[in-house]
Amino acid sequence: MNISETARAAKMASISLAAVETAAKNHALSEIAAALKAHSAAIIAANKEDLDAAEKNNLASPLLKRLKFDEAKIAQTIAGIETLIALDDPVGRTIAATELDTGLELYKVTCPIGVIGVVFESRPDALVQISTLCLKSGNSVLLKGGSEASNTNRILADTISAAGEKAGLPSGWLRLLETREDVAAMLALDEYIDLVIPRGSNEFVRYIMNNTNIPVLGHADGICHVYIESDADMQMAVDITVDSKCQYVAVCNAAETLLVHRDIAAEFLAKAKAALEQSGCRLRGCEKTAAIIDVEPASEQDWSIEYLDYILSIKVVDNIDAAIEHINRYGSGHTDAIVTTDKAKAEMFMSLVDSANVLWNCSTRFSDGFRYGLGAEVGISTNKIHARGPVGLEGLVIYKYKLCGSGQIVADYAGENSKKKFKHKKIFVSE
Amino acid sequence: MNISETARAAKMASISLAAVETAAKNHALSEIAAALKAHSAAIIAANKEDLDAAEKNNLASPLLKRLKFDEAKIAQTIAGIETLIALDDPVGRTIAATELDTGLELYKVTCPIGVIGVVFESRPDALVQISTLCLKSGNSVLLKGGSEASNTNRILADTISAAGEKAGLPSGWLRLLETREDVAAMLALDEYIDLVIPRGSNEFVRYIMNNTNIPVLGHADGICHVYIESDADMQMAVDITVDSKCQYVAVCNAAETLLVHRDIAAEFLAKAKAALEQSGCRLRGCEKTAAIIDVEPASEQDWSIEYLDYILSIKVVDNIDAAIEHINRYGSGHTDAIVTTDKAKAEMFMSLVDSANVLWNCSTRFSDGFRYGLGAEVGISTNKIHARGPVGLEGLVIYKYKLCGSGQIVADYAGENSKKKFKHKKIFVSE
Repeated sequence: MNISETARAAKMASISLAAVETAAKNHALSEIAAALKAHSAAIIAANKEDLDAAEKNNLASPLLKRLKFDEAKIAQTIAGIETLIALDDPVGRTIAATELDTGLELYKVTCPIGVIGVVFESRPDALVQISTLCLKSGNSVLLKGGSEASNTNRILADTISAAGEKAGLPSGWLRLLETREDVAAMLALDEYIDLVIPRGSNEFVRYIMNNTNIPVLGHADGICHVYIESDADMQMAVDITVDSKCQYVAVCNAAETLLVHRDIAAEFLAKAKAALEQSGCRLRGCEKTAAIIDVEPASEQDWSIEYLDYILSIKVVDNIDAAIEHINRYGSGHTDAIVTTDKAKAEMFMSLVDSANVLWNCSTRFSDGFRYGLGAEVGISTNKIHARGPVGLEGLVIYKYKLCGSGQIVADYAGENSKKKFKHKKIFVSE
Repeated sequence: MNISETARAAKMASISLAAVETAAKNHALSEIAAALKAHSAAIIAANKEDLDAAEKNNLASPLLKRLKFDEAKIAQTIAGIETLIALDDPVGRTIAATELDTGLELYKVTCPIGVIGVVFESRPDALVQISTLCLKSGNSVLLKGGSEASNTNRILADTISAAGEKAGLPSGWLRLLETREDVAAMLALDEYIDLVIPRGSNEFVRYIMNNTNIPVLGHADGICHVYIESDADMQMAVDITVDSKCQYVAVCNAAETLLVHRDIAAEFLAKAKAALEQSGCRLRGCEKTAAIIDVEPASEQDWSIEYLDYILSIKVVDNIDAAIEHINRYGSGHTDAIVTTDKAKAEMFMSLVDSANVLWNCSTRFSDGFRYGLGAEVGISTNKIHARGPVGLEGLVIYKYKLCGSGQIVADYAGENSKKKFKHKKIFVSE
């Protein structure tokens, strides 16, 4: 099958997958977990081939670590599937119901999106996590992983798709794409694919976004800010700054820029510098910052850089308005925090900062599906439609309107002196 | 200002508009209604210029009717604004809340999307309706109407934006674009514009969809189906068929194809033909249809045509599966109806037909924001993400996560022997 036929088969599978009952989907998830366990020796052997090739190609050690898929990773993955089985089915939930007239009832009911194309880099556990999330939400899935992990991905995809089909899922609900050409071809198939989720570097995500008409769910940059108000608790401000920047620097929700109110700058910056440098962090500051502490100079460009490293840019601002303006101008709409003891200022910040996650008196590192209690995450979205912030199962569904009548025709409701009138009586609203 | 500056100003306005309280937005809506009333003589005079020019250019009479904006239309428009004032504010609603840990609470709260670009054809009332919907939902709006209505649109946009700003809305929240070049330029401004809503012909919507990276909310084709099951009530089946096709043929929710179960075809088609022809409808049928009643032959192409006219294509199918397959293959995901007395078959149809609106025993013409009781409608969407079906106020908002802490840092929750553990206690869930 070429990629177009594969995508068409996934679309056909998605139609019947949308109607599969919760119990049957959970049964398939159990079978998939069992199959991963049963095949663990073969999976580890395939992963060994990928690791050997990667070592030969001098892959950097953090990448090797991400590529590794051993007994412990398999156990973690299986535990993840068990958590997923316990979560509520996001499909078939009635969001709203209205009685339009006697015997004419409208239901707004959640349903799967259809076919999801997922493109991700090296981590093989992402393949398992995403494909099982798609299954639970009733979506077909086309996957393309990093070429370094090709042996591992192939056996994982084969194991999962076979176990699913054996448990009664429609054939073609999961397929692995193996080449870059397949990805390029997939991005053109908006007829069959409803949503693309890219996971990987900024350049990679931007490439996907610029090369498809299919809606893309995800984020490129994560330029996150911490703003310290004049009334902030000093120790809290230092702790949150250090954690936001240094707890794990290589991730999208780590802070890149620190904004400080001028009235607290002298005392705070001295303490923050000591704490940040103790964590091995280099500082780049604006002129006002440089007048207070010893820093490298920050250029205009620094406000737009996602360092993903032990580097922090610092700017002293005149007031909260300037902080908000800076964030809305240079930020990426991902995660931004304020430290203040003033509730009104916190509310103003959280209302005016146009980001998926706005935080008060806590670290930017909390913006994450696991920490938010979503149970599982397909990624973090900075989109302004559909799903935003950490996206779990509920971001993989849409709704349809179901209207149940008893022979009603519109002609009876048309015109000023119509035979019948609408009641529009709300039966149920949850949205 | 060039279009890029206009869009940037709209973006800046959208930030403060997002924080405007419900009462202030409703006050602005009242002021807009009052201004439309106060300026009605000037509005009617401007519209007269457009009508005169259109007559000179021999505009077709249905288009002239749509273009007309008289005393009655102004009164209707003002009544629409009053209805909108009475609707709940879609912004600031808490969708879910979770206690992550003591003193660390997560709220998922609705917020505006930002800047909406709306491109529509001749009807000036659409300008008023859409701009007031955007205001109530806290969004800035850039509008481009049909050139035939340029005088009317200009005075309406000026009146609405001035009344809004006088009532305290941020400057730049509404702007009118006047040229095709402006539209082309707008479609490239994904930096400032978050969503484009095109209203108009199929070709026009498709042009917009193919020429922007900004998400588009809308629909091109409306190829809607009515399927008559073998057990259908005969009179109901005829009535629903005639209403779905003929009640108003020029609209997207009118039926274009009739699918008939072979076991009921002989009796039903004879009755349907009589009723449809009485309404002035021409019939095109498959070979099996032609063996029962006298029809023009339908070609393969007919299953994909949106006639928007008194023409109906008819196909006899072997069973409900064939009907569903036909709809998912040739339909446009807009609105499809089944007529049956069997609840299980209706549920199967509504679950397997992949359309925004799936209807049982009623006319396809019901799929409409007013008839659904949404109060107001920005359009009908066949998208599979964000908003689908008739889209009202709730389709013009997204959400943000607000996390309120008391100094929490992620380091305390990291690792197996972490100092603190998450509680993830649901405070509130509505989704």
